[in-house]
Parts: sequence; C-alpha cells; structure tokens
Amino acid sequence: MKNSARKRCITIPGFSFAGISAGIKESGDRDLALIFSEVPAVAAALFTTNRIKAAPVKLGISSLSRQKHCQAVIINSGNANACTGDQGLKDARRMITRTANELGIIPGLVQVSSTGIIGRRLPVKNIEKAIPDLVHKLSPVSLPDAASAIMTTDTFSKISQKKIKIGNKKGTIAGIAKGSGMICPNMATMLCYIFTDIAVTHNTLDSALRRAAGLSFNRLSVDNDMSTNDTVMILSSGSLGNTPLTERSSHFKTFENAFIDVMYDLSRMIAADGEGATKLVEVTVRGTRRESDAERIGKMISNSMLVKTAIYGKDPNWGRIIAAIGSAGVNVREEKIDIFLNRIKLVSRGVGAGREKAAAKVLSNRNIAIKVDLNSGKKSAKVLTCDLTEEYIKINAHYST
Amino acid sequence: MKNSARKRCITIPGFSFAGISAGIKESGDRDLALIFSEVPAVAAALFTTNRIKAAPVKLGISSLSRQKHCQAVIINSGNANACTGDQGLKDARRMITRTANELGIIPGLVQVSSTGIIGRRLPVKNIEKAIPDLVHKLSPVSLPDAASAIMTTDTFSKISQKKIKIGNKKGTIAGIAKGSGMICPNMATMLCYIFTDIAVTHNTLDSALRRAAGLSFNRLSVDNDMSTNDTVMILSSGSLGNTPLTERSSHFKTFENAFIDVMYDLSRMIAADGEGATKLVEVTVRGTRRESDAERIGKMISNSMLVKTAIYGKDPNWGRIIAAIGSAGVNVREEKIDIFLNRIKLVSRGVGAGREKAAAKVLSNRNIAIKVDLNSGKKSAKVLTCDLTEEYIKINAHYST
Repeated sequence: MKNSARKRCITIPGFSFAGISAGIKESGDRDLALIFSEVPAVAAALFTTNRIKAAPVKLGISSLSRQKHCQAVIINSGNANACTGDQGLKDARRMITRTANELGIIPGLVQVSSTGIIGRRLPVKNIEKAIPDLVHKLSPVSLPDAASAIMTTDTFSKISQKKIKIGNKKGTIAGIAKGSGMICPNMATMLCYIFTDIAVTHNTLDSALRRAAGLSFNRLSVDNDMSTNDTVMILSSGSLGNTPLTERSSHFKTFENAFIDVMYDLSRMIAADGEGATKLVEVTVRGTRRESDAERIGKMISNSMLVKTAIYGKDPNWGRIIAAIGSAGVNVREEKIDIFLNRIKLVSRGVGAGREKAAAKVLSNRNIAIKVDLNSGKKSAKVLTCDLTEEYIKINAHYST
Repeated sequence: MKNSARKRCITIPGFSFAGISAGIKESGDRDLALIFSEVPAVAAALFTTNRIKAAPVKLGISSLSRQKHCQAVIINSGNANACTGDQGLKDARRMITRTANELGIIPGLVQVSSTGIIGRRLPVKNIEKAIPDLVHKLSPVSLPDAASAIMTTDTFSKISQKKIKIGNKKGTIAGIAKGSGMICPNMATMLCYIFTDIAVTHNTLDSALRRAAGLSFNRLSVDNDMSTNDTVMILSSGSLGNTPLTERSSHFKTFENAFIDVMYDLSRMIAADGEGATKLVEVTVRGTRRESDAERIGKMISNSMLVKTAIYGKDPNWGRIIAAIGSAGVNVREEKIDIFLNRIKLVSRGVGAGREKAAAKVLSNRNIAIKVDLNSGKKSAKVLTCDLTEEYIKINAHYST
C-alpha cells in the first residue's frame, strides 16, 4: 500500500496550480496551495455537516450561496482556523483579499480552505507574506505541488485524473484530495478539489457533486470522527468549448460516471492512507431491499473497531462482522446471511463454513474485500475503510493533529 | 486503575453462588457460574438489541415473556453460543435441563447465558459433566467465584453492593458484571446480574431496570461494537419479608436510587476495565434543552477515537472534543461552549482559554472528567468511557475473542 502518489504530469486546460511552504508547518513542508482558473469557473461545493464549522467553511457556505463562480482557491495546511472566533473570520478574509489583490480579481471569486489543528490562531501574516511567491509559482504542471501542500498526516499526495470524449473533443476531470484521520461517513478531515475543462451548467454540476459524494466520500470511514473543515469543491472552467452539459445532454452520463470514478479513486486513496493503516478494506453489502439498508450495514462494519483490528491481525473473526451487521438497526435474517472474505465463503446462511484457514491466508493481502449477502433483496452498497493498528494510536496519542 | 476486585465477603439473603472451571476456556480458568435463589425470585431482564442474537438470548427473551420468575441462572464464558443455528438452541436447552434436574426445579425457572467467541459450537458435554460439581459448590459466600467465572477479557471481576433500610429492615442490592470489549451505548458484550432480598412487584422491577440501565449501561462505551449476547437481569427473592415495593411505595425511591448506584458502579468498573484502557473517563454534558441532546453529545465524545487517543497521550486536544460535539447532530452554538478537563477550563465560550499546560498535567490522573457546558438549557447527562491504547489493538488484533 501507501501507493506512491501518481505524480505523472497532469494538466487540465485552463487551470494552473502552486504549492509552497509559508512556514505554517514546523517541519518546513509545503503548506500553502493555490488553484487558479483562467476564467471564472462554474463552482459547486459541499461542506462539513459538523455544527462546529471552521472560519473558511463559514465564509465558503455564505459566498457560494450568493455566487456560482470561483476563479481561485487558496488552501493552507497545518492550521484549521477553527474555533478561532471572530479573529478566525478576519484572518480567513485577509487570505482572500490578499490573494484577490495579487491575482487582480475580485475577492468574491476567491475561496479559502484550511486544514490542521483546531483552536490556534492562523499565522495569517506568514501566509500574506507568501502569497506573492505563491502566485508567481502558478503553473499548469504544478498540480502535484498543490496536492502535497494540502497534506497533513497524509503519507502520500492524492491525485486522480480521467479523460473522456465529449463529442469529438477530449475533456479532462482531475482532482486532488487530502485526509487520513478524522474520516467518517459524511466527509471528514477531508479536502477535495475537482477540476474540469468540460462546461457544465451550475445546477447540473451541483447535483452531480451531491450524487458523486454520496457514492464516494460519504461512504468512506477511517475513524468515527467528523471534522470542522471538510470541503469538496468542483470547478468547471468550460475551456473545452462544449455546450454546457445538463442532465439531459447525451454526454452527461459519460461525464457523471467519470466524475464518480475520480471521486471514488480519491476516496480509495484516503482509505488506503488511513492513519496507521496497513490494509485498504472495501465492504460490499448486497441483497437488501433498500440501498440505504446496505449502506447502513456497510458503515457499521466499516466503523467496527473490532472488525478493523481483526483484519489488521489477519484474524478471520466473522463473529465480529456478523455482530456489526446485526447492530445496524436493519431487520436482517441471521439464517440468510453469507459472508465472503476475498472470495472465501466464511459464513453460509448464518453459520460458519469452516474456511478460517483459507481466509487467514487471504488476510495477508493489502486489499481486503468483505462481501456480505443478506439474500433478501436486490439492492447493494459499497463502503471504504482501512484496518486499525497500533500506529493509529501512536499518531493520534502522541502528536497534536 | 484496574481496581482489584472488591472481594470482601458479600452475601445476599436467599441467594447462593458457584463458579468453577468446566474446561471451556483453554486457560483452565473458571468458566461456568451458577446463581441460585432459595425461592423462585421475581425476575426482569433486558437483552441485546442486536438483530443477531445468541441462542441463550433467544431462549431468555421467549421464556421471560411467558414467565415472571427465575430461580437459577447458569452462565458460561469462553463461548458465546451465537451464530450456531439450531444446534446452538439445542445446546442451550441442554444446559437448562441439566441444571434444572440437578437442582430439582422445573426448567422454566432456569435462565442461561453465554459469553465468548461467536460461531463455535458450545462444548455442551463438558458443561453437562461439570454441572453436578457446580451445584455441589453453591454457597452464599461464593459470589466472587461466580463473578470471576463470567469474565472473558476482563482483567478484574466486577462486584458491587449497597445496603438500604426498608422500614426497620436492612435490605441488600448486589450485582456482578463482566465486559471490557464490544462495549457500546445500548449494552454490549456485557453480562450483568443483580440480586436483592427486597421484595418488589414484577412490573415495578421491570420498569426500574429499564430506567437504571438507561442511566448506566446504556451510557457506557468502550468501543462502538454491540454484542449478540448482552444480558442484564435482576432477581428479587423477597427474603427480606417486606411488602413488595411498587412505584408508589414510600421506600421505592430509596430502592431505585440504590439500584441505579449499583448499576452505575458496575458500569464504571466495565469502563475502567475497557480493553487496554489506562484511564476511566466520565463525560458530563450539561446546559442542553433536552436530556437526549446531552446524551447524544456525551456519546459522540465517548465514541470519538481521536478524543480517546488524545486522553491516552495526555494531550489536552480540545479541538477533537469540540469537533465531536459538533458532529452529534444537535444544534449547538459554538460561541456558548465551555469545556473543562478535571476542573481546568480549557475552552471558554467556544475559544481556547490557553490552559493546555495545566490540563496536560491533569491528564496524568487515572480518572478523567470531561465536562461540557453548552449554556443553552438545564438538562444534562453523564456517559462513561475509557481511553484508547495500543494495548486495545493488540488484544483485539492478535487474540480471537
């Protein structure tokens, strides 16, 4: 695992990027990123549902309700600018203003995000000082710099890209994400920015984003914690020159599927990079009457500390899986449940199939698939998670994050 | 912590106990317990809400719906008799029959419980063979033997007792419990048996049990997992000779408070003995408009892996606490939140109070109190949990439990 970032040269027509160190992180690592679109891009975003929201999230929610475009996003890591009161809002606004001035655009077209420790004042002076250099470094080939500048406890940067044909033109959807702890269904300490040159109307972009997040980031769990800073944003520059897509466009399904693929790919990377994780776990629940039932059961399994530690310990302890299934609040029939671990049928109709030895072997793999069939319907859902290790405890007990 | 069990001589008039090894646990430790009441006792019980229920739980639910008395409870540890199909039900019935025969009472007056690994057939022959010896060892002073025979990953046995005056007579309420992992709000891998010589009517006993569990075991969280075997049972022998208590009796409040005290005391021991735990954490949330809001927030904090690892690491990372508060789905006002750690005010009106150093010191204690005041109402709730350590991972990754 810990797939090294795919740092092949990714460009998205119309976008440029930068990522530098502004001295926010003590380590001296990159901690300030800028995303810039040549023209105001159509923008849609989803923010944390946590009632405690970081200052930049508060600003983002308010500005994107008034305004459907965005031309630049400035993001710092190392400090969440959360629980910082009015000062936090002032500091976030200063980041926006300075960025807008330096880019020569109106502040209304600039979004800001922060990620890192909660409750400490943002070192906004350092950031302001660094902005000219950040703008100076903008380049169409610097997506990897931006991707690494938004990392906190991530061990690799997360970039995904997909190219699709819209008529006779080739469009791009690409994205970057960060997040490895405080990850829980419903978006967590997670930042994600998706860029496309394909023109899409605002309404269509907004609803496609909600659906794609529902199938990816909202079905992703590292721990049970939900952060104050989660943000997923998509920017469509329209540089491809196509007629803006709506849900009725013939190419819309192609676009939406590629969009979901990019989001799911980034979600998988976040799960694989779960703090201290050694294994990526994909939980598939099928055979339910409603998709929401499958999703609830999948999340219950994915959140079970006992299941996650068993997988880490290569212990095919299906009792923990079935106990998690039963605790999801969904009416299940024990005598119909089948459980598979990477194709090994561990449980057949609610009773152990005696395949523990074969299953223990399979648990040496880095990618684990838990499949549950409730044999009671035709719906299914997939949830991503990782194993739980001593390393997770070490990271979170001994470092302030 | 790891308070050594309070093995002072506890007796409850009318009850006798035994705990022996029947060879279910490989370690050879005690694994079979018997509780016996001289007369059929009025009985009330609560069972797991997990949809997957162990065989003995299925039998208990069915028999206690027909029958309000119980004279004996036989309990084995080391095997949960869960997900064992029809065979499991047959095996549980054999335990009941053999116990009833040996005691010379009707099988309808015998309850059975099991705890341990899921999905393996119960070694019922070993158990049957051991029952005569178990019955033979029954003694009024053997409560500690029974308490230790129901342990699984527990590091100490859990016994609590309270004496109260009912008129001019002195009555006793005592209980034993086990549980240290798979503990989640709404009762988990938890077995608890309470005994009293005080006469109480069945309806009153039943509703008092529900209320007491709501304030104790249902507000207790070690991990997020809920077991297939949870059982809390109370037996009232009436040996004290008082007029059976109803909710209108003048002594009822005294009885109920003592009952809650015993249940809460056992809950604290379970939290303190959480797998791998080094600290007992009591989370108090106050200042909400509804008690259920305080409870939800308390559970969210208690279940936060990030909060639990921070406490383990002696890191007064209140950002994780406030993020947990915000994610409970309760409407909270950030600018009204106060957070205390053992009397140190960490957060004042939503903003850090700069007391991290003092708070870090306090985190060296074994008993940690997190107090949250939302300053928005008059309701409150208390939730018990423990810290999360590498040891929890080791226990659950490397041993099948």
